[in-house]
This record gives sequence, C-alpha cells and structure tokens, in this order.
Amino acid sequence: MKKIAIVTSGGDAPGMNAAIRALTRLATWSGVEVIGFQRGWEGLLHNNCMKLDSRAVSGILHLGGTILRTSRCEEFKRRAGLEKAAETLAKNDVDGLVVIGGDGSARGANALSRYTDTLMIALPASIDNDVYGTEETIGFDTAVNTALVEINKIRDTAVSHERTFIVEVMGRKRGFLALEVGLTAGAEIILVPEVKYDREKIYETLRKNAAKGKRSSIIVVAEGIGETRKLAEDIERNVNTEVRVSILGYVQRGGSPTARSRLLANLFAEKAIDLLLDGIGNRLVGIQRGEITSISLEEACENQKPLNIDMLSLAERLAT
Amino acid sequence: MKKIAIVTSGGDAPGMNAAIRALTRLATWSGVEVIGFQRGWEGLLHNNCMKLDSRAVSGILHLGGTILRTSRCEEFKRRAGLEKAAETLAKNDVDGLVVIGGDGSARGANALSRYTDTLMIALPASIDNDVYGTEETIGFDTAVNTALVEINKIRDTAVSHERTFIVEVMGRKRGFLALEVGLTAGAEIILVPEVKYDREKIYETLRKNAAKGKRSSIIVVAEGIGETRKLAEDIERNVNTEVRVSILGYVQRGGSPTARSRLLANLFAEKAIDLLLDGIGNRLVGIQRGEITSISLEEACENQKPLNIDMLSLAERLAT
Amino acid sequence: MKKIAIVTSGGDAPGMNAAIRALTRLATWSGVEVIGFQRGWEGLLHNNCMKLDSRAVSGILHLGGTILRTSRCEEFKRRAGLEKAAETLAKNDVDGLVVIGGDGSARGANALSRYTDTLMIALPASIDNDVYGTEETIGFDTAVNTALVEINKIRDTAVSHERTFIVEVMGRKRGFLALEVGLTAGAEIILVPEVKYDREKIYETLRKNAAKGKRSSIIVVAEGIGETRKLAEDIERNVNTEVRVSILGYVQRGGSPTARSRLLANLFAEKAIDLLLDGIGNRLVGIQRGEITSISLEEACENQKPLNIDMLSLAERLAT
Amino acid sequence: MKKIAIVTSGGDAPGMNAAIRALTRLATWSGVEVIGFQRGWEGLLHNNCMKLDSRAVSGILHLGGTILRTSRCEEFKRRAGLEKAAETLAKNDVDGLVVIGGDGSARGANALSRYTDTLMIALPASIDNDVYGTEETIGFDTAVNTALVEINKIRDTAVSHERTFIVEVMGRKRGFLALEVGLTAGAEIILVPEVKYDREKIYETLRKNAAKGKRSSIIVVAEGIGETRKLAEDIERNVNTEVRVSILGYVQRGGSPTARSRLLANLFAEKAIDLLLDGIGNRLVGIQRGEITSISLEEACENQKPLNIDMLSLAERLAT
Repeated sequence: MKKIAIVTSGGDAPGMNAAIRALTRLATWSGVEVIGFQRGWEGLLHNNCMKLDSRAVSGILHLGGTILRTSRCEEFKRRAGLEKAAETLAKNDVDGLVVIGGDGSARGANALSRYTDTLMIALPASIDNDVYGTEETIGFDTAVNTALVEINKIRDTAVSHERTFIVEVMGRKRGFLALEVGLTAGAEIILVPEVKYDREKIYETLRKNAAKGKRSSIIVVAEGIGETRKLAEDIERNVNTEVRVSILGYVQRGGSPTARSRLLANLFAEKAIDLLLDGIGNRLVGIQRGEITSISLEEACENQKPLNIDMLSLAERLAT
Repeated sequence: MKKIAIVTSGGDAPGMNAAIRALTRLATWSGVEVIGFQRGWEGLLHNNCMKLDSRAVSGILHLGGTILRTSRCEEFKRRAGLEKAAETLAKNDVDGLVVIGGDGSARGANALSRYTDTLMIALPASIDNDVYGTEETIGFDTAVNTALVEINKIRDTAVSHERTFIVEVMGRKRGFLALEVGLTAGAEIILVPEVKYDREKIYETLRKNAAKGKRSSIIVVAEGIGETRKLAEDIERNVNTEVRVSILGYVQRGGSPTARSRLLANLFAEKAIDLLLDGIGNRLVGIQRGEITSISLEEACENQKPLNIDMLSLAERLAT
Repeated sequence: MKKIAIVTSGGDAPGMNAAIRALTRLATWSGVEVIGFQRGWEGLLHNNCMKLDSRAVSGILHLGGTILRTSRCEEFKRRAGLEKAAETLAKNDVDGLVVIGGDGSARGANALSRYTDTLMIALPASIDNDVYGTEETIGFDTAVNTALVEINKIRDTAVSHERTFIVEVMGRKRGFLALEVGLTAGAEIILVPEVKYDREKIYETLRKNAAKGKRSSIIVVAEGIGETRKLAEDIERNVNTEVRVSILGYVQRGGSPTARSRLLANLFAEKAIDLLLDGIGNRLVGIQRGEITSISLEEACENQKPLNIDMLSLAERLAT
Repeated sequence: MKKIAIVTSGGDAPGMNAAIRALTRLATWSGVEVIGFQRGWEGLLHNNCMKLDSRAVSGILHLGGTILRTSRCEEFKRRAGLEKAAETLAKNDVDGLVVIGGDGSARGANALSRYTDTLMIALPASIDNDVYGTEETIGFDTAVNTALVEINKIRDTAVSHERTFIVEVMGRKRGFLALEVGLTAGAEIILVPEVKYDREKIYETLRKNAAKGKRSSIIVVAEGIGETRKLAEDIERNVNTEVRVSILGYVQRGGSPTARSRLLANLFAEKAIDLLLDGIGNRLVGIQRGEITSISLEEACENQKPLNIDMLSLAERLAT
C-alpha cells in the first residue's frame, strides 16, 4: 500500500470533510501517499486529482460539504466509463480507493471493482442513512439535529396560530430520517414510505387531539411519500384545522457536522486504512451493534436495509 | 389609566412575547392592571381574555411565537365586528389597548379607534419589516439571522455540487427581508418586488461569475417576486449551471428572538406605556434615526415604507 | 404495577425532561399511574410530590434541565434518610421508582432498595458519561456538541491571535467528555485523568506544531486534571507561545437535548417501563453494543466504567 | 487614491472579515489597489503584507476572527515604532490606511497620523462597544447574542437546581456588553463599572425574589467590576441561596458574525472608501442616530463614550 485515493460521490453529507481529513492523516501517518479525485466519479473519468497531505486537510474538520466537490455522473454507470476510471487508477498507481458517499457510491465502487485491481473501500456518508451494512451513516445524526432545530421553530408558529404543520424531510425513498426526526421532535404523526398509512386514521388522531385540547400538531412526512401537498389539502378538507406545509429541503444537507457524525467519520476512516494496510478491499465499512465492522461490497449492494418499525409504534405511544 | 389590554394579531414574530412581558411588567410597576385578549382580534370579538401580571409573563422572554396566540380575523374587518370589539373594551373597562403585530394590525387598530374611546397603541412586530413609521419591526432581526444560518448551510451544498441556488425568503409583497438577508449573506444576486429585474442581466452575471471561476452562486429572492420556480427553469435553460430552489418558509417566523428583537420589544413597550400614562393614544411606536418615536396611526396607515434601494447597489458591488 | 414515581437527582443533564415525558406517557398508556418527587431525594424525604399525566409533560421534550427540579441531598446518604424515603414510597403506594441521574443517583437507588419493596430502576442521565453499565448516558451527546460549538468559536480567536488555548471541559473525575470533545474538535492535545501526562511531551508537541507552521493550538483538558491554570503558566514559560485558558463551565449542562440524547431518553424509558411491568426491579438501564439492556444496580455500583484509551491514540494521529 | 492598506489590530471581533471583504471589493470596484498588513501593527513594523483582491476575500464573510491576524504590539506605542510604521507605508506607496479594531486601534491610528501623509481611517470593531463616535461597533451585536445563548443554557441549570448564577461577561473596563446582555437576557440584577453598587441592595433583591417564589436568579456582571468570585461568596454568606459563577470568557469573541455585525461592517467599509476617494483622512467611521457618519480621530480619542444609564433602570423594572 503506497498510495491511496479518495473520492466523494453523490449527494454531499456533513462529515465528508472529517472523513477526508482522517483518511489523509491516518494514511500519511502510516507512510502512505494520498491523492483526491475531484467532482466525484467525474474526476476519475478525467483524471482530475490533487495531492492531499496533513496541511491540505487542516481546518476542514468542522466544515459541511466536501472540499473534493461531488457530482452525479451518468457516464460512470456505463462500461466505458468504468474502464476509463480503472485506467485513471492504474495511471496514478493507486493501490486503494476510498469512496465516501451513499448507497449509489457503494454500488459504483462495487461495479468499478470488477475492472481494476485497486482495492475498493466504501465509507457510508449520507443524510438518508439508507445504506445496508451500517446502522448509521456519516451525516445522518447532523441532518436529524438540523431538522429538529427547524421543527422547534415551526412549532412556535404552529402553537401561536393553532395550526397543523406538515413538515417534509428528506430521505429519498426511505423513512430513516423522517422516523428519527419525528420520534425525537415529538411529532404527533410520522409517515414513512415503508409503512402504508390510512388517511382516515390521521384525521381521527387529529380530531382526538383537538378534543383533548391539543390545538396544534406536527406531522413529519418523508419525501418518499410523494404527496405532501395533496395530504395537506385532504386534511384541511376533512378535519377542522388550518394546515400549513414546510418542506425543509437543502438545509438538511449542510451545516457543521455534529460530534457523532465526526466521530463516525474518524472511526470509519481508521477502519478503512486498517483494511487497506492489511491488503483487504471491496468492503463497506460500517457500525453494527456499536462496533466498527465491514462487509463485502457485494453484500452491501444486494441487500436493503430494514427500517426499525418498532420505533414507529414507540413514537405513537409517546405522542399521546 | 387604570387598566390596559394587550392583543397580538396577524402573523407571529419572534419578540412578541418579549413585548407582552415588558408591557405587563412596566404597566404593573406603574400600578396599571393588565389583561390579554387571546387569538388576536377574535379574542376581542368574543371577550376571550386572561389576567396578566408579573408572574404570568415569567419565563417567556426568550420564546418565539406568542403566548396570547394570534389569528387572522375576517369578521373584524367589517363595521359590525369593530363595534363588537369596542363593546368588549367598554365592558372590561379597558383604558388603553396595545396591539402587537404588523401592517394589518396597525390598520385594525386605526379602524377600531373610530368606534371606541379606549386609547390605541400599535407596537410593530413583523418579520416582514413593512410597517411605515419604524425603521425596524420586532422580529425582523431574528428572521434575518435565521435566514443567514440557513443560507450558510445551503452554501455547503452549493459549493460542493457547484450549483446555483435560488433561496426564497418571506416578506409578503415587500423586499426588506430579502434585501437585508441577501446583503449580509453575500448573495450573488438579490431580487426584490420593488425593483424590476432583467432575466438577461441575471444570466450575464452568472456567466461572468463562472468565467471568473466562481462555480456556485446564491440568488436570494423575495417571495413577492412570485415566480421562483419559473426563474430556476429559465436560468437552467439559459446558463450552463444546475439550479436548485430552496424555499425557507415558516422556519423564518419562529425561534428565540435575537438580542436586537428583544431590545426593540423592551423599548417599544416602554414608550407605549409612557404614552398611555400621558393619556396619548392612536399612535404607532417605532424607531427612527436610532430613537424611539411615535407617529399617528392615521399617518402610519396612509403611507408606504420605502425600501432603501442604495443597499441593492451596495450588495451588487460587494458580490463581485 | 399500579403506580410509579419518578425522581431526578444529582446534576441536571439535557434529556432528563425527555425521559420524564417518555416514562409518564408510556406508563399512562399501560394504565399505570405516575407521580413525580420534586427536588431530588429531598422530595422523597419530605413527601414533596406532584401528579404526572400526558398533559403535564406536554411541551417539555426539548427543554434542558428538569421540571422536577433536582438537588444534592446529604441527609439521604444516612440510614435515617433512607428509611424516611422508604416510608414516603410506602405511604404513596409506589410500586416502582425510576431514578433519573448519574453515578450517585444509581448508588442512591441501590442503597434505598435495601429499605423498601418498591422496585428501583436507574436511568443514567449525566453529561459526564461515567456510569458503569451503559456506553452512553442521556445528556452526554448534548454536552459534547455544546463544547464543540464553543471550541469552534474559541478557535477563531486562537487562529487570529496565533495563541494556544487550553479549554477545560467538565467530567468530574473522569475523561469521557474531554476525550470525545477533543477527538471531534480536532484538539491538538487531550488530557484526561485516566492517563498520566508528561509536560515535556506537551511542550514538544507544541514546538513541533510551530515548526510545521501551525501557529495556534487547542488543548482540551478534563476538569479532573485539576491544574488547568498551572499548566497554562508552565507552557507559557517553556514554549514560545501565548496561552489563554477558557473554562467552559455550566453552559455544558444546559441547552436543548440533541436528537441522540432524546432518543436514548425515549429508549431507556421504554425499557424501564417494560421491566417494571414485568415485575423486575433494582436494575440500571443502559445501551451496550447498540442494544438497550439492563444490569443489576449492585453490579453498576461495584464497577468502574473504563475509558477507551485507543481513542486517545487515534486523536493523536489525527492531530498531526 | 491608488492604493490602500488594511490592518486589523487589538482583540479580534466577529465581522472583521466582513469589513476586510467589503473594503477590498469596494476599493477594487473603484480601481484602487489593496494590500493587507498581517498581525496588526506588527505587520507595519516589519512590512509583513499581502495583496488583496476580490478572490482573496471570497468565502470569508461569515467567518469569525480575522484572516489578517492580529496582535497587541508594544513597540508601536513608542515614537520609533510609529516612524518605522510610517516608513513602511511610504515604501509601499500606501495612500490610505484603514485600521479595523477597537479603542486602542483608533488611538494607534491617531498617533501614526502625525508621522505620515497616508490618510488614516479607523473602523470600530470590538465586542466591548467602548469606542466614542459610534453607537455600535462591528462585533458587538454578535457578542451580545452569543452571551444570550449561553445564559439561556445556564438558566436551565439555575432553575433545575434553584440556584443563583453570577454570569461574568467581557467588556474590559466598561459595561456596554453587560448592560445589553443583562437587559435582553432578563437578568434579575446587572452590575456595570459605571454605576456603584450596593451589596445590601443585591441581597435585598434576592430575598424579595425568593419571597415571591422566584427560586433562581441570574446576575450579569461586567468583568470590569473585578470581584465576581468575592461577590459570589458574599451573597452565599448573606442570602439563603446556593451561588454559582460562570465566566463566559473567550467564546464571546468568536463565532460567525450576526446579520447586524455584517451590515455595520459593510456600511462602515462603504463610508471609509468614500472618504478616502474624497481625499479625506484621519476620521473614525461610526453609526450615530441610525446614520453612518464620521468624526475626527482626535475627537474620538479625546472623549469617552457614555453608558446609557436609563437602560439600567428599565432593566430593573423589567426584572420584577
């Protein structure tokens, strides 16, 4: 292991810079050279890279986003793209490539591994937390806390105007973010794509709350539900309450990473470098039952991470 | 002056509670009794009120929203509604009524003043800052800072993905919030309803920035512009950049008031009580040229507050 | 299980209110009555209690501190005090008592269990994280994040003035908080009571950093080290750098709990109620290897939680 | 006016970077070259400077501290130092020098003006707000808000433990920061160096509050009082309350500038460049009665800014 490369790919997540810093410093400490490809897979296609050393990653630990930039890259999904990327790795004598990103990045790393001898390691970083093989991704804790702070502000208006607010959070097709946000924000109702919901039951809950004197409610909805505004109209038509919609949007992606997102970045990076120094590749690093682990990229890509449905029922009992 | 009443009306703004606290404590200090009408003008129509004293307003200084609740009330806009409200004031022996709210609340106070002998004082509180007679409203500084923090987060993603972001802020039909947010956030472009804008000039600016190596831009748009999404599409079609839209929405209304919003609340409240103790009513309290002042409700309602257009040109020079 | 009581004891921690809310609502859901003793053990001694139901714990999820108040109570440490507390429990027909607090609270619960048949459950809540039987206490994650935000601010001044800052964080006699804060803040040096430190090595590190062009450093010190100011003087005398001390102090105790502190509060509460409904007592609830577990109070009190020393060495390699 | 220089001096304040950015961009816009001297006056003594242009000040608007660094410089206070600084200005053909800093920086600029033809402009930036000639300094609003957030956290513990907290804020020998923080935080008592205080009156107030059922109090003390810990002991001895001390310290200096601190930085910078382009120097820029103004450096240095004592009495009435 003489030289490793780092690339950040897909949507940015808070803590990506912490991971870049940790990977660079731990590799350098072990006498391994480090380069970074810029703008995601696109940088591999066009050999767009920069040298990284301890000074280059100074002062980035607390920054959101990624200093390596990122992008979504269609060309990389085709065979020609993968071959071109493999060539870049060979040209630069890269022994190990660490890909920091979400579900799609792991898939990309897995696909690329068939065209190159460079060892691939995927570090899960995503605000969606939808990566199989890890209970938590880098950036997830930050996004949950950001959403919490926003909902606290929205509750001021909800209570003052005695309104129902539907707050849509990110999460792509999954409900990890919505579930954790809803549970910790004390949302009266939580809707996730993994569980079918019944409009009548929602109306019922809101009516019961009103009867108990609870004159404002927060409904946290995962974007994957895909009909936030329609739902708002339906509720307004069926329940005697004003409904407002707030789509949190891109603010959930940014911001300084929380301690936990930074900690995961550090621990995942340590594991990644350890694996590479041991000559092990094609793994996705993760945390499982409180321990830093790794599984094969193959396994990570073939499975779908289950949502903890029990937490939904806990949330329901807590919102009474 | 034996008894005053407080009402919060229209959209909630951070610092309304600080004003309620200050009014209550300063009145009590001077031996004046205080009651609060609940849910805005509606509370006056239905004689929905509560006693307020020093203990009742304890621990609310830092809370967003309004403990008196608020609403928008159609009935109050008609003669019958105003007469009913005047009756409630008479029934409760209210000598002075302090209305905390925005532009519409001042109009309401002015209209009501024709039907009652109760002295009316309007305390401008609004995140829109669109009240004539005061350079700044209670809550405006908080909303500006909230938007700043959000834009900081959005910039992480904008830079990492090298995208253009259009951030829509509140302000109803006016551009006060957008201008101050845009200037202090370092937005590359600011669009306000008061100034006609030229799409071609926007494209030009973005192309020039790209040529200079500035690969991400923030455009702050007032909601009053009314075509944020259309603009995004047009830019994407005409400039070689990915565009994303973020509508900050209700988070701008909530949150703990900043020091400045609290300070204004305290100083406006002091002035209001001073006026009432002097037997003066039908005034809107404000800050002008750094001093706490008041103008007649009549004057406040007949004029439109001008936007400081010079600041737009300053912002343009600063964004180079 | 017909009636349970809740008490918060020792130093307050963010998330205590979330735990009170969750315990109350989950118990109520299962048809169990809930009361709360006020001001810690003192409330048990003087039968100072209040009824708790779903409405009583509404709107407290996001609040720091504890609505039940807390105190340190000397009398409770003596036999007479414990007997008196046991009597109060009997008098109120309390079947289960949940004690929310740190190390000392667990000890108190254990001692009290010898004098009463009421089932005891300890819920670990402490910013110090020094409770055996759980990897993390309620409030710890919040305190770490609070300290991070503070250090971010201090770094502005450290860099601008090219100074060395010693930041003292809480943690009583242990280094859990200092270690996690130091690691995630990117501190150049971390000092914890569990590891002997060598002044010469500190001077050496600072001199090396200066030689590399790093002109400002942050040293995170656990309060348990007990000689922060002396250390500052020694460094200033031995290394060519200005040193400033910042003792974060009580701000670390307060603030709205983070998502993680709230989540732990919810999950610990669920476990506590489950245990009590099963007729099991004298347990300390915790999280171990990512799972919610419980151990006997006896075991919790007899053992000392070890600090993960490997993380110190990781921090060192990351600070290069 | 072909070339201007910028220097930041004395203690750092949030918004200094915003001022550097605005000065650089506005000067560049007008075709004026810009350089920055590093590490305060020391940079002038040792001709330690860097070129500044629009790109060099990109991405710094929201950062605390100063990218030009700062220092306190003894040599500069002597005649030889001032002559050396004047030589550096001549050597670099600097037509105008903008000094960003507090009271001491204005004095330095005034002293230097006697040795050089370079036009001097002082931009007041200080968290202490103790500069004559401006109602508000860059950074003051940020420091007030930072202290507010801290006190909010401390209040959680104060209330939970029913304690009295003495919170010491910065401000050097003046009480501007303490007064504004105390007033907007709702402190029960505020102590500033400008007003003699009576220990007995403090005890009396605390006893009265206790009698009214207010079991926790916050006392905000300016560091200029100089006996915070002694006061704590005295109170504990004379009033039946536990007292804790929290010294906010350096966190008040750092952090991202608030909207208002950024706005002042922009407006002050605009005025400074306007003055220089008009060939006017030896002025201190400020805000007075809501307008951007300037006074002579001479006048600024000879006068002492008065504290608004009326606000203390307002705070007292509000804390009942």
